[in-house]
Amino acid sequence: MAAAATTKAILPLHHHHHHAAATKNGLFISIHAYQNSPFETQPSQKPSNKAIKLAESLSNMLHLHIERNLNYHPSNVPRIEDKHDTPTMSPKEDISKKWQEIRGSNDWNNLLDPLHPWLRREIVKYGEFAQATYDAFDFDSFSEYCGSCRYNERKLFGKLGLIESGYKVAKYVYAMSHIDLPEWLERSRFADTWSKDSNWMGFVAVSDDQETRRIGRRDIVVAWRGTVAPSEWYDNMQRKLEPIGQGEAKVEHGFLSLYTSKSESTRYNKSSASEQVMREVKKLVNYYKGRGEEVGITITGHSLGGALALLNAYEAAKNFPSLPISVISFAAPRVGNIAFRDELYQMGVKTLRVTIKQDIVPRMPGIVFNESLQKFDDITGTLEWIYTHVGVELKLDIRSSPYLKKGLNLVGIHMLETYLHLVDGFLDSTTTFRSDARRDVVLVNKDCNMLVDELRIPHNWYQLENKGLERNFHRRWVKPTRYPEDIPSPTVESYSNVLEMHDSYGLESLFSI
Amino acid sequence: MAAAATTKAILPLHHHHHHAAATKNGLFISIHAYQNSPFETQPSQKPSNKAIKLAESLSNMLHLHIERNLNYHPSNVPRIEDKHDTPTMSPKEDISKKWQEIRGSNDWNNLLDPLHPWLRREIVKYGEFAQATYDAFDFDSFSEYCGSCRYNERKLFGKLGLIESGYKVAKYVYAMSHIDLPEWLERSRFADTWSKDSNWMGFVAVSDDQETRRIGRRDIVVAWRGTVAPSEWYDNMQRKLEPIGQGEAKVEHGFLSLYTSKSESTRYNKSSASEQVMREVKKLVNYYKGRGEEVGITITGHSLGGALALLNAYEAAKNFPSLPISVISFAAPRVGNIAFRDELYQMGVKTLRVTIKQDIVPRMPGIVFNESLQKFDDITGTLEWIYTHVGVELKLDIRSSPYLKKGLNLVGIHMLETYLHLVDGFLDSTTTFRSDARRDVVLVNKDCNMLVDELRIPHNWYQLENKGLERNFHRRWVKPTRYPEDIPSPTVESYSNVLEMHDSYGLESLFSI
Repeated sequence: MAAAATTKAILPLHHHHHHAAATKNGLFISIHAYQNSPFETQPSQKPSNKAIKLAESLSNMLHLHIERNLNYHPSNVPRIEDKHDTPTMSPKEDISKKWQEIRGSNDWNNLLDPLHPWLRREIVKYGEFAQATYDAFDFDSFSEYCGSCRYNERKLFGKLGLIESGYKVAKYVYAMSHIDLPEWLERSRFADTWSKDSNWMGFVAVSDDQETRRIGRRDIVVAWRGTVAPSEWYDNMQRKLEPIGQGEAKVEHGFLSLYTSKSESTRYNKSSASEQVMREVKKLVNYYKGRGEEVGITITGHSLGGALALLNAYEAAKNFPSLPISVISFAAPRVGNIAFRDELYQMGVKTLRVTIKQDIVPRMPGIVFNESLQKFDDITGTLEWIYTHVGVELKLDIRSSPYLKKGLNLVGIHMLETYLHLVDGFLDSTTTFRSDARRDVVLVNKDCNMLVDELRIPHNWYQLENKGLERNFHRRWVKPTRYPEDIPSPTVESYSNVLEMHDSYGLESLFSI
Repeated sequence: MAAAATTKAILPLHHHHHHAAATKNGLFISIHAYQNSPFETQPSQKPSNKAIKLAESLSNMLHLHIERNLNYHPSNVPRIEDKHDTPTMSPKEDISKKWQEIRGSNDWNNLLDPLHPWLRREIVKYGEFAQATYDAFDFDSFSEYCGSCRYNERKLFGKLGLIESGYKVAKYVYAMSHIDLPEWLERSRFADTWSKDSNWMGFVAVSDDQETRRIGRRDIVVAWRGTVAPSEWYDNMQRKLEPIGQGEAKVEHGFLSLYTSKSESTRYNKSSASEQVMREVKKLVNYYKGRGEEVGITITGHSLGGALALLNAYEAAKNFPSLPISVISFAAPRVGNIAFRDELYQMGVKTLRVTIKQDIVPRMPGIVFNESLQKFDDITGTLEWIYTHVGVELKLDIRSSPYLKKGLNLVGIHMLETYLHLVDGFLDSTTTFRSDARRDVVLVNKDCNMLVDELRIPHNWYQLENKGLERNFHRRWVKPTRYPEDIPSPTVESYSNVLEMHDSYGLESLFSI
C-alpha cells in the first residue's frame, strides 16, 4: 500500500470513466490530475481523434519533457534537403533464397543486431501496410462514412503510394465489439451513417507474381488497424483473461471481443473480423496451394492492431498447421498468458515484436508512473506472470535518431511512423542512426510533433485541403459526396471470389487502378 | 472595493504576463483560472494563431455555454443544400444616384433599420476586403514568410475570389510597433525570415472604371488587418491615452504606436504604416482628381483593424478636408476620448460601426465578468468618459440567425465571417434572418465553430492540404519554395507609381491575373 501511495499509475483513462474506473482493481491505472491551468495544455496540435487529444493532455500534464537528459545537440541535425533527390525506398533485392530466415524460421537469429538490410526492408514493407490502415481511415465525425476506409479495395494502394509494394488488396475487414468500447469505435455524429456498430479494421492482401518470386513464396498479408493512442481501448479493458482454444491459453477479454464479435443486426459484422479474415485467407490459401505454390501468411499491426495480429496468428496456426505464419507487430501490448505464448511457439508461429524503449504501450498492462522518481516503473511480479509477451523483440530507441525530439511525447513516441523511421535508421544496438536511411523523415510528423524544430516541418501536417470542402460552380463550399465505388459495401466481391472464377492472369487489369 | 471582489474581470491575458499584468492598474482585467481538469479544454479546434487558442481556453473555462437560454429549436435550421445552386452575391445595382447617402453623408439616417439592400451589399463588400487580410495572411510560424501575405498585390483578389469586386489592389501596408507587443506580431521561428519586425497589415485598393460608374465616385479603399482575437494586443495595451493632432484629442497609445512606428533598421517599416498608406492615397487622390473625377475614401477593418481605420480616417481627414471619408468598422473597440470623436465629426468623417450584441470586444476597454451573475458587465462611469465610441452603430445579434450556435463562444462571435453572415441576413432589428440571404453560410466556420452541428460543416476548416507540403518526383514531402513574385518586396511598384507614368487604360492587363 505504501507503493500504491507513492506511485500514480497513468494511462489512459477517459475522464468520463475516471472515478468509476479507479475502483475496479489494483491493476487499473488512474490519472493524477495535476491542477494546471488549462492554458498550459497545447491545443495547437490537430488531433486526428479523441485518443490523441487525451494522450496529448496527459503528456502535457505530466510535465515529463526530459530534454534535459540528452547528450544530443540540435546543431547535429542532418539536413533533410540533401536527400530530396534520392529515392525513399531501398532497392528491391531477390531474397527468395533466404526467405525462411527472413520470415523468422530461425527466430531471426543473427539477423537483428546488426539488422540485416533485407529484413529491415521487409519490416518497413509490412509496417507501411499497417500505416495504410490509418492513412486511409475516415476520422471525420461529421462524415456519414466516419469509421470507414476513404477508398475502396482496388484504389487503396494507389491512393497511398503503395503501388510499388507488389501486393494487391484482397478484402477489407470490419470489426465490432460486444463490450462497450465507446472510445474504440469512431462514430459519425449523425443517424444516417454507413454503420452504427462497425469500423474498418484492416485488410487482407496478397503478393503478386513478381513479388512472390522475389520473396520466395506467395505471401498472404493481414494488416490490422490499431488505435493511434491506447486510451481508446485501454481504459475500457476489463483486465480479464478469457480462454482461447482448448487448453490453458488465455487472452485479454477486450481484444478477443473485438476480434470475435458479430451481430445479425449489423451490416458489416454479420460475421466477425475473425471470420471475415479467415474466410478470405482460406480461399486464398486453397487457391494458391491448388496451383502448387509455396504459401505463407504474414500478419501485421500496430498497437491494438498488434494485439489483434497475435490472436489472428493463433487462429491461423490452428487452421493451417503446415503453413509458415509470421507476425510483425509494432508497439503491441501484452495480450495473453504464458500458455497462450507457449501454444503459439508450439504451433511454430514466429513473432517479431518491434518496440521503442520509451514507448509505454508495449509495457502494458502494468505500467505505472512513479511520482517521487518522476519516471515510469513497471509493476514487476504478478503482472508479468499474467500477461506475457510473445516472440523476439527488436528494440528501438528514440535517442538514436538525430531528427527526433527527445521529450516524453507519449503520442509521438507511440506513432507507427516514428517506429518506421527508427527501423529505417537502425544498424545495430550500439550504433547511431544510419546515414544512408531512405525513408522520408518528414513522414514522422504526419500526426504528431516529434521532429526537431530545426527541420522546419509542421507538426500534424497530414490533413485534407479545407477538410474536404470544395467550391462548386457558384463558388459555394460544399461537401463532395463520396464516389459510389468508395462507399463501403458489405457484399463486395473479394479478390479470392474473383480468383476462384477466373484465371488470375486475365484479372490483373481489374485490380490495378 | 466590494464590487471588485465580486467581479472577476476577464479577457484577454496571456498566462505569461498574468501576474505582472494584474498589478498594472485598476482597469486591467485578469483571468480567473477555474480549477478545471485540462481534459475539459477542447483542443480539437485548429487554432490559426495563439490568440484563438487563448480565447478558446477562456470560453471553455468560463462555462458560459448559454444554450439553455434559447428559444431556438435545432429542427428549425434551414437546409443549406437548397441554396447550392444559387449565387453567393446579391446582383450589382447602380447606386450612383444615391451614393452619398449610402456612404453615410446623412449619417445613414433611415438606411439602417430596416437595412437598405444597397447599403447591405456595400457593407459586405468592404467587410470582404477586411476578411481578405486574414485569408491571405501567412500564420505559419514554421514559414520563413510568417507574418506576410501569401500572394502579391496583383494576385490577391484572384486567389481569394474577389475578382468580381471591381477593385484593384494598389499597395500593401506593413506595420511594426515600438511598444513591446509580442502577441501582436506573428513571427517566424527562424532567423532567416523575411522580416523580424514587421507584419503585413493591409492594403490600399481602388475601384476600377466600371465599379466607379456604379458607385458614383472613384473609391479609394484602405483595408486594415485586425487580430482574430483581441488577446494579442489587448493585454499589452497600456491603457494610456496619448494626444493626436493639435487639440484635446487623445487615443490609445498602443493603437497609435502600431499606426505610426517606424525604424531605419527594418526592411518594411522604414516608413510607418501611416506614411505608407497616406503616400499611396495621396498619389491616387491626386491622379484621379487630376482627371477631374469625383473621389472618396473608404476605410475598413475588423477588431484591431477597426481601431486603426479610425486613426487612419482622422489623418486622412486632416489631409483631404474636402474629400468624403467613410469608415466601415467591424467589432472595433473604443479608440479615443470625446475630443477625438468630436474632431472626427467636425471634419465630416462618417463612421458606421458594425457590432454584435454578444461580442465583448466593442465593449472594450471596460468589460468585466461578473461571477455572481455569471454574465458580463460593463464598467460604467469613468471608462465611458475616457474611451468613447465614434459614429453610428449597426447592432447585430447572433440569436437572429438560425444557423449559429447560441453559446458564448468568444472567438466565434468575434470573427469577421460571423459579422458578415449576420449583416447578410439582417432585415431590421425586429425581424429574424432574411430567408433570401446570399452569402455562403459555410464560410462562418472557416476558423471557428459557430455553425450548428445539424449543418454538418466541420469547424476551423480553412486549411491548406498537408499544411502546404507537397510530394516531389521521388515522392518525398517537401516545402515548396514561395514563388519569387510572392516574396514580399519593400520596393514593389505600387499601382499609383504605374498610373503616374502611364495611361491607366494600357495597364489593365498588368494588374489582372
